[in-house]
Amino acid sequence: MRPSATPAMEPLDLEQYLSHHRALVEEALAQRLPWQAAPSERLNAAMRYSLLGGGKRLRPILVLACTEALGHRPERFLPFACAMECIHTYSLIHDDLPAMDDDALRRGRPTCHKQFDEATAILAGDALLTLAFELAAQPIAGVDPLESLGLIQLLAQGAGMGGMVGGQMLDMLSEKKQLSLEELKTVHACKTGALIRVACVAGARLGGGTPEQRERLANYGAAIGLAFQITDDILDETGDSRLLGKATGQDQQSAKATYPRLLGLHNARQEAEHQVAQAISSLEPFTSQADPLRHLARFVLTRTH
Amino acid sequence: MRPSATPAMEPLDLEQYLSHHRALVEEALAQRLPWQAAPSERLNAAMRYSLLGGGKRLRPILVLACTEALGHRPERFLPFACAMECIHTYSLIHDDLPAMDDDALRRGRPTCHKQFDEATAILAGDALLTLAFELAAQPIAGVDPLESLGLIQLLAQGAGMGGMVGGQMLDMLSEKKQLSLEELKTVHACKTGALIRVACVAGARLGGGTPEQRERLANYGAAIGLAFQITDDILDETGDSRLLGKATGQDQQSAKATYPRLLGLHNARQEAEHQVAQAISSLEPFTSQADPLRHLARFVLTRTH
Repeated sequence: MRPSATPAMEPLDLEQYLSHHRALVEEALAQRLPWQAAPSERLNAAMRYSLLGGGKRLRPILVLACTEALGHRPERFLPFACAMECIHTYSLIHDDLPAMDDDALRRGRPTCHKQFDEATAILAGDALLTLAFELAAQPIAGVDPLESLGLIQLLAQGAGMGGMVGGQMLDMLSEKKQLSLEELKTVHACKTGALIRVACVAGARLGGGTPEQRERLANYGAAIGLAFQITDDILDETGDSRLLGKATGQDQQSAKATYPRLLGLHNARQEAEHQVAQAISSLEPFTSQADPLRHLARFVLTRTH
Repeated sequence: MRPSATPAMEPLDLEQYLSHHRALVEEALAQRLPWQAAPSERLNAAMRYSLLGGGKRLRPILVLACTEALGHRPERFLPFACAMECIHTYSLIHDDLPAMDDDALRRGRPTCHKQFDEATAILAGDALLTLAFELAAQPIAGVDPLESLGLIQLLAQGAGMGGMVGGQMLDMLSEKKQLSLEELKTVHACKTGALIRVACVAGARLGGGTPEQRERLANYGAAIGLAFQITDDILDETGDSRLLGKATGQDQQSAKATYPRLLGLHNARQEAEHQVAQAISSLEPFTSQADPLRHLARFVLTRTH
């Protein structure tokens, strides 16, 4: 682990932090989606297959880590954090469909429509998106219900036509044309950036942050979102498909615009590093309670899958 | 129009009521989804094509009519009512997909994936489902935000794995086996019944109904939901595809269980009439402010499309 530039930084075992928080999130997800809760076993099985089948759990952990940066214990924010993971998982299921990116492998296992079938995968995605809002609407002790309504709107905006879904549409359309760097940034700001930023803003608002703290955590989220996407593109070009759990080199095959292709591999790495430095400097006034966020920013850059 | 059994019933021009309320809903939907609000014009166009392309607007009108039955003017409940229509429209788009019911015609026009393409239709559905929750989370003057959170949960439950999506999954699976009448009722209680019932319960709660009023409007919703589905099955067998705006006889071709097939046409009609009578008797203690609901119950039965 490289030390960050921030003087307040304390030693922290990021692996331990991540695995602890991942376990918190996964236990809450499994509880919320018990075996055979749906009228159809098959739908339930498909939802569980995709939702509980691994993953970094980056978005829910960001929600929790932002509330911790503001001095809270994370447990009562788990339903909202889980909502973010449900949205992320649904988006993967739908993006993998034959009519979309047509992927056969995800997190090292067959994609949902390969394991089940297309209709089941479409419905499992729909049900997870719907479940997300059921979770997000759960009242939280100490959080004004009016704030919760605002966060549901924020979540919907980040996930919907002006955010993730809009970005996926742009991404699909971009396969047929050569994007400029600015256009590529727009695609990714919508497709992956919006939801990562929402995770941080939601954590800031759930934790009762001041307007300045909210803005700083929003900036942090925007910067790591971009760094995350650049790294994703680099890993697709250079990564190991066994580690990634999905096919690599796919962007190359499709002649799709990526950061390494538009900037060159070296400059793409530099840009990702620059964004991570920006993210960490956004956290400057925060105490060591924000150390997990600082380490997470580095992790985005150094991850191998 | 046949007079209902309820003595409190006043003369009401249902056509005029419906067209007025339909215009209210459609204007609100069009405002909420202005041309090119999404980063992708194509996504925006597909969402508008399906959402603003006609339809009975039954679910949003039920929300509004239930608030009116409790003495309210309907306008401030429009965002929530529109949320219900967004969910209904998304479900039609996804149900029409080739992997699902594979329909080419809807409301007299090509289905979304025929007019655009499959990927666009999947994303337009996803974006409409997401928009629904953004609308449902809009604070409403005079409604406790905690009540709004509860209604979002109710909406998600009616739309999700335990409701509409679960019902669609059961419906897909049922094509391969012969359902009993009880199983068919379960499929429809989930697939169409849940959301119609939620519309009525939401109207009752938005309008500040007493527990008894809420229960009565819930019973009303359950009964007309069932009547609506039986009539749908009957129309599929006997209806005019030009009036319906979709192909008829499809259930027959697929040897799928329907009410007319399991009960016989005559008994199916009687069951629908029985449900409508039940719905109207649920409204017994309500004043003439509930007349639109009484007439709507009859309309469900006598509609030709």
